[in-house]
Amino acid sequence: MPIARAALFALSALSLLPLSTHAATPARKTAAEILKASPATDWRPLDPQNTLVMTVNGQQVIMELAPAFAPEHAANIRTLAHEGYYDGLAVVRVQDNFVTQWGDPNEDDKEKARKLGTAKPKLPAEFSRPLKGLEMTRIADFDGWAKVTGFADGMPVAADPSHNQAWIPHCYGVIGAGRGDTVDSSNGSSLYVIIGQAPRALDLNITVVGRVIKGMEALSALPRGTGDMGFYEKPEQNVPLQSVKLLADLPQAERPQLELMKTDSASFKAILEARRHTPPGWYVHSPEYSNVCNMSVPMRAIAAPQAK
Amino acid sequence: MPIARAALFALSALSLLPLSTHAATPARKTAAEILKASPATDWRPLDPQNTLVMTVNGQQVIMELAPAFAPEHAANIRTLAHEGYYDGLAVVRVQDNFVTQWGDPNEDDKEKARKLGTAKPKLPAEFSRPLKGLEMTRIADFDGWAKVTGFADGMPVAADPSHNQAWIPHCYGVIGAGRGDTVDSSNGSSLYVIIGQAPRALDLNITVVGRVIKGMEALSALPRGTGDMGFYEKPEQNVPLQSVKLLADLPQAERPQLELMKTDSASFKAILEARRHTPPGWYVHSPEYSNVCNMSVPMRAIAAPQAK
Repeated sequence: MPIARAALFALSALSLLPLSTHAATPARKTAAEILKASPATDWRPLDPQNTLVMTVNGQQVIMELAPAFAPEHAANIRTLAHEGYYDGLAVVRVQDNFVTQWGDPNEDDKEKARKLGTAKPKLPAEFSRPLKGLEMTRIADFDGWAKVTGFADGMPVAADPSHNQAWIPHCYGVIGAGRGDTVDSSNGSSLYVIIGQAPRALDLNITVVGRVIKGMEALSALPRGTGDMGFYEKPEQNVPLQSVKLLADLPQAERPQLELMKTDSASFKAILEARRHTPPGWYVHSPEYSNVCNMSVPMRAIAAPQAK
Repeated sequence: MPIARAALFALSALSLLPLSTHAATPARKTAAEILKASPATDWRPLDPQNTLVMTVNGQQVIMELAPAFAPEHAANIRTLAHEGYYDGLAVVRVQDNFVTQWGDPNEDDKEKARKLGTAKPKLPAEFSRPLKGLEMTRIADFDGWAKVTGFADGMPVAADPSHNQAWIPHCYGVIGAGRGDTVDSSNGSSLYVIIGQAPRALDLNITVVGRVIKGMEALSALPRGTGDMGFYEKPEQNVPLQSVKLLADLPQAERPQLELMKTDSASFKAILEARRHTPPGWYVHSPEYSNVCNMSVPMRAIAAPQAK
């Protein structure tokens, strides 16, 4: 630690300090302890059909699609990636504390705009899905923006039982499909990711398609655009997007070897509860509260499969 | 607009679209309309004794101290800035979706560590202040992390009336004083700013000293550190911090000419209410909710005073 006084405890780090130092809290398992004890059956591999590997500015970003929430958009993005639509496009917008957005810089120029291939130019709005039929791991605490929150299929979820609606809230790292003034004007060719405080007022106003599971720093640390709404003002400011590949299209040897904790597992449920309390040690106060946008789904590296 | 499909409405932009397009919402003033109509008396200049002008990586960051919440830290930071303590130090840590932190890279080396001058090496913890006596503009909605939220003296505020406590919540742009394992181990020589989703579990666990009012992009877009807790691993990765000056110490001609909306003004109260509803136009759904960490205090440029 280069700076003793700077030993600000990291929320994302998981403390293993002795329980006895946290006088206000009875002995309970910390998220780190639960993680360490989690059985292999509480983890799942990446889904080759729903994982995208993006290279932007030479850095790797791994994204997971959410077909349970936006099936038409997920299918279209899968097609766009499979056919190489995104390869060679660019990040065109970075608005501080809001979004990083990528797409075709020539989208508005009919001659220069890239062709969508076999992907659909027009899709229905997929702002929410029925809550019924969705297996959710619920968070006990009140959210404010939604009556119910939790996780399903690896995604954060917000829901309104009285309207039978469920949706992915705009938490940090969540990816949505840019749209114009009409609700059905997104097709997945231009995507954005949240890089600041969750702008939950976007919820139910735009189609969310998934989330970044690794490599956010390649999208969050980019220079902010100085134009209107954070768009880069000059074409040379655009950040090159080398490629977006469907995991299924990558040779085995090139696939990231990662596992995600299942969000319907006993371990994940225990971690959600553990995170309502600050871990013992550095903390002197516990909020006894948690919020869906302050939670993350554990991920871990695994050994590459042996060549046959 | 370079990308039509990309016309994702910016939350920070203020819509002036006709009210008639937003069928679900009765005619009410938008935040933009309230801002436009605000009288001059609802604005205040920067306070020369509580404003710091930092130059980091050649970019300007303007910060406002919060002596109403952390009087000892504010006074110490004022002294440190006045005596040039920060000049030539560095950003040493950038942890994605958490904090950017600056201080003395040699802090732990007794010989090389910079001297504190007349500033105090040791201060009391100032995690909260009494709620009584604090004039707050309250937010109507439930927060989850705190029983009461709002704004006071230009700062976001969270409070617990049953414990007579008020504090500045860890919203995006809020600045705190790094500390070690003991609660009274901060003195303002190392500071951090929140660059992601509000890590509200830090509230009441560390001393908050103010907030960035302009130039966040100079701190939020820095390369993330790859070491433990986001520290830069090599000294040459540290980002140079050229200077931190108290506004009062800058010649009039070099002072940023800015005004902030008074958070106890009628205009600000009306904006807090307006922001509970999405503006008409692009939005089709309104949350009818707001959260203290999704709010910002309006700021505007003013003409420089005429030389006498």
